[in-house]
Amino acid sequence: MELTVYLAGEIHTNWREELKEKAAKNNLPLTFVAPQTNHDRSDNVGEDILGKQPNNLYKDRTASDINNFRTQVLMQKADLVIALFGEKYRQWNTAMDTSAAITLNKPTIIIRPESLIHPLKELSNKANVTVETVDQALEVLQYIYE
Amino acid sequence: MELTVYLAGEIHTNWREELKEKAAKNNLPLTFVAPQTNHDRSDNVGEDILGKQPNNLYKDRTASDINNFRTQVLMQKADLVIALFGEKYRQWNTAMDTSAAITLNKPTIIIRPESLIHPLKELSNKANVTVETVDQALEVLQYIYE
Amino acid sequence: MELTVYLAGEIHTNWREELKEKAAKNNLPLTFVAPQTNHDRSDNVGEDILGKQPNNLYKDRTASDINNFRTQVLMQKADLVIALFGEKYRQWNTAMDTSAAITLNKPTIIIRPESLIHPLKELSNKANVTVETVDQALEVLQYIYE
Amino acid sequence: MELTVYLAGEIHTNWREELKEKAAKNNLPLTFVAPQTNHDRSDNVGEDILGKQPNNLYKDRTASDINNFRTQVLMQKADLVIALFGEKYRQWNTAMDTSAAITLNKPTIIIRPESLIHPLKELSNKANVTVETVDQALEVLQYIYE
Amino acid sequence: MELTVYLAGEIHTNWREELKEKAAKNNLPLTFVAPQTNHDRSDNVGEDILGKQPNNLYKDRTASDINNFRTQVLMQKADLVIALFGEKYRQWNTAMDTSAAITLNKPTIIIRPESLIHPLKELSNKANVTVETVDQALEVLQYIYE
Amino acid sequence: MELTVYLAGEIHTNWREELKEKAAKNNLPLTFVAPQTNHDRSDNVGEDILGKQPNNLYKDRTASDINNFRTQVLMQKADLVIALFGEKYRQWNTAMDTSAAITLNKPTIIIRPESLIHPLKELSNKANVTVETVDQALEVLQYIYE
Amino acid sequence: MELTVYLAGEIHTNWREELKEKAAKNNLPLTFVAPQTNHDRSDNVGEDILGKQPNNLYKDRTASDINNFRTQVLMQKADLVIALFGEKYRQWNTAMDTSAAITLNKPTIIIRPESLIHPLKELSNKANVTVETVDQALEVLQYIYE
Amino acid sequence: MELTVYLAGEIHTNWREELKEKAAKNNLPLTFVAPQTNHDRSDNVGEDILGKQPNNLYKDRTASDINNFRTQVLMQKADLVIALFGEKYRQWNTAMDTSAAITLNKPTIIIRPESLIHPLKELSNKANVTVETVDQALEVLQYIYE
Repeated sequence: MELTVYLAGEIHTNWREELKEKAAKNNLPLTFVAPQTNHDRSDNVGEDILGKQPNNLYKDRTASDINNFRTQVLMQKADLVIALFGEKYRQWNTAMDTSAAITLNKPTIIIRPESLIHPLKELSNKANVTVETVDQALEVLQYIYE
Repeated sequence: MELTVYLAGEIHTNWREELKEKAAKNNLPLTFVAPQTNHDRSDNVGEDILGKQPNNLYKDRTASDINNFRTQVLMQKADLVIALFGEKYRQWNTAMDTSAAITLNKPTIIIRPESLIHPLKELSNKANVTVETVDQALEVLQYIYE
Repeated sequence: MELTVYLAGEIHTNWREELKEKAAKNNLPLTFVAPQTNHDRSDNVGEDILGKQPNNLYKDRTASDINNFRTQVLMQKADLVIALFGEKYRQWNTAMDTSAAITLNKPTIIIRPESLIHPLKELSNKANVTVETVDQALEVLQYIYE
Repeated sequence: MELTVYLAGEIHTNWREELKEKAAKNNLPLTFVAPQTNHDRSDNVGEDILGKQPNNLYKDRTASDINNFRTQVLMQKADLVIALFGEKYRQWNTAMDTSAAITLNKPTIIIRPESLIHPLKELSNKANVTVETVDQALEVLQYIYE
Repeated sequence: MELTVYLAGEIHTNWREELKEKAAKNNLPLTFVAPQTNHDRSDNVGEDILGKQPNNLYKDRTASDINNFRTQVLMQKADLVIALFGEKYRQWNTAMDTSAAITLNKPTIIIRPESLIHPLKELSNKANVTVETVDQALEVLQYIYE
Repeated sequence: MELTVYLAGEIHTNWREELKEKAAKNNLPLTFVAPQTNHDRSDNVGEDILGKQPNNLYKDRTASDINNFRTQVLMQKADLVIALFGEKYRQWNTAMDTSAAITLNKPTIIIRPESLIHPLKELSNKANVTVETVDQALEVLQYIYE
Repeated sequence: MELTVYLAGEIHTNWREELKEKAAKNNLPLTFVAPQTNHDRSDNVGEDILGKQPNNLYKDRTASDINNFRTQVLMQKADLVIALFGEKYRQWNTAMDTSAAITLNKPTIIIRPESLIHPLKELSNKANVTVETVDQALEVLQYIYE
Repeated sequence: MELTVYLAGEIHTNWREELKEKAAKNNLPLTFVAPQTNHDRSDNVGEDILGKQPNNLYKDRTASDINNFRTQVLMQKADLVIALFGEKYRQWNTAMDTSAAITLNKPTIIIRPESLIHPLKELSNKANVTVETVDQALEVLQYIYE
């Protein structure tokens, strides 16, 4: 049973690569997709493609058009979603993607540090599983194949 | 055309009452619903109803069961959603509710200060309309009835 | 905000009447619907309407046609579902109705005694809230209106 | 026409292996998926991955998070569902999975002994086909390919 | 609980009036809707509104545009459907409406004479309940309110 | 049977008023909703509410945010849609609203002059009924109530 | 673009084989599925698998359980549907399958002789295309690949 | 991640070939599908298959049956949609297909010249991304694979 996994969330650590490597080592038949993880490219993609915009609001608006397009394409192909929240930043895109995935009935795992239990409690409650580490998320993925 | 409006978001200012009063003054046939806005009650409702839990994780888990139940009931009855983001806090419930509403095809207005343009750009992009003040949101509501 | 509540589950105690009375005392604007609670009528309704069947299998088959028709009509009109599991019997209709309600995105409360925590753990996990008493379920309903 | 079959239900006999072998002998192009059939692993998986929980309620709650995650992933990939009810136990997970599958419009076969005709009558009525033996279920699968 | 009932099927007997009268006598809070029951008007409505068509194929095509429009509007407002098959004619509209209703998850009762058991067996199987008389259908409706 | 009708299309003639008056004269229990029919207000609403934008592209983008919000709210409340195409202009909003309505399974009538038969042939084909005059559309509405 | 085609309808002529051969000759990348076309097997399959039933009604009921199971499995895998109506018999299964397919948004072609224009007019109107011969249906299939 | 792209819109320039060639040069794993781009064949296909019709209205009606059938089959297989509006013609099919795609949650890119900003503003607003050239659309497609 091949499955496609959308990896939402933090783009400032290498957790996606760590997860992919460990999944490969365990021979899990998983394909991983994700949002743009190059922060600058993600911020500039609107102007990169459509040219200079009149101000930051519209620079952001064109970039978000294209980022949301990419996310929608890949999320719809995914069989399940893993979302990692880090301790920094507001990470509203992570919350947005996680909530959209759950509403679309995509089975969803949240990875978050203990310090975020309280502010994420309602979102954790709607997700299927909440864990604290990438290794735990991997164990949940492996459980599908036992 | 009577409409039900779900008011998601910030619970530390009186923006809901302000909006309701102004809507009433303008004779808009709107019914407003919202999450629990008493922060302590929202945090404690699990233990209030189910009794003392073994630790904070499970106190939060029982509270979020009941908060999500309330939100799901009222959101499903709503014809449209207004979500207000303030400058403080992570407000992940606001992002979660807004994203769920949009995914359910509920027409959605976001109210946020100029300072949050950048971090909210993808969510704003998926919402129908983003404004900066309660008065502007009210004008959008009135526009339905012109 | 008037809401319709489907009361699934046990038909050998008067928990529905208890809940209705307490809801009325608290002026909650709720309408309650339920399956047939007269056990004999529920078992015999197929033969009552369609006449003697050739054996028990077909007596059951005609009765279940009509019981499922009733449940489908009323469940579709319901905004939320409360399901009570007692300690006796297999109660597969209660499990069936609860699971169908959750799959249809009906917000759902389960009432079950502590002794049933383990066998009902997966179903409880999919429901929004699990409580142990009718009074606790009523408190959850009241929380919608706070 | 390759099809994926979800095998819900009893985990204390080897009916899944029996069905798989017979399907293979008949060259039916079927892929079978199923819930965790190791009872202990299923009960302990929450603590296995997330560590010791404060009590049995929360041990069960973390285990059911992960069991339901697995079921949701595999059920969504399935083209049809076979659910076997045995004579022992309450088997609420079997009833839950069967009802969810039917509500999701998954074509569904129930296998149950004659002694369970009456308590399962409404669920049988909603399923497509009810049979008494694994061989009969196999015959129904073969009929798709005639 | 007020319900709207779509009465599909035969238009050459007065079974709809009979059912309505008996429902009224029993104080059932039901609203009944139906297709055009004047056969000539139904056949001619296309030309009545759009003028003479070049041949019978196109006379039929314009009439069916408008008949299907009416059916779609009223069927979507219905909470449940009753379809009566008589012994004469091919009644493909009755079969079409019944199958559409069932596919849309409208709870459905079929009324048909014993002589039609065999040719209607698959459609009866998908409907919730099949009865032989208008009185039996009325008893099923009453059962919702017991 | 009260019905809500969304009137999409041309905003430069008074066809909506004509239809409403004739419906009222015939005592049809219809509520009519529509897009903003004041062309200038529709073009300027973004700047009216959100202030001066940096260029015409963004003036249009803010206006369309709010126009689409209004349309989505009212279209979702509508039981059926009537769309009138005139001979002038590209009328892409009319085509957009009509196609969205049909895709959402809203029963739909198109009114268009004979001269537009060819360019509208695929859209007419997906709509339920195509007529040439407001009076003919009214006759189709009346047919629901015969 | 490989496509799966469900061939509903008449089982007393060899139109399915004719269509398959011609599609193969034209190298169309189509997979065809269909209901049971052996009439006796279709009538007897319930008793063949489940044993002698007490009367004809229940013989039919068990057979239709299994026939509908097969149809549901294969219809859900189909990208489009072709339904052939012949001049004999009531063919309610053909009407049922066609209407279900259309309601599920499966693109649908009806093949019927000129003599059936009138009784099939509403169903033809809901289908995408109606033709009179297998060759014409094949031409419509080929048109997808031009 | 292989994706299927539906190319809606203008059929009088070779933009589809241009896009396909450039996608191939960049090794993007994309399959492209499209409506009939031979204008005459598209206009005549009804009479080509079904024979001479009595007048132009019905010639158009049979052609549009078959064109809409093709579009529905291919659009349902598509993961995303690109629609190009040129400066000439009313292009209502392009607007219709774009709006249908968006309503079906297909991620959508519009290509249109600057001169069409104003008349397309509401449709652009509902699409994910609007660009002015085929090269820009290609860059958006490439962004999915970065």
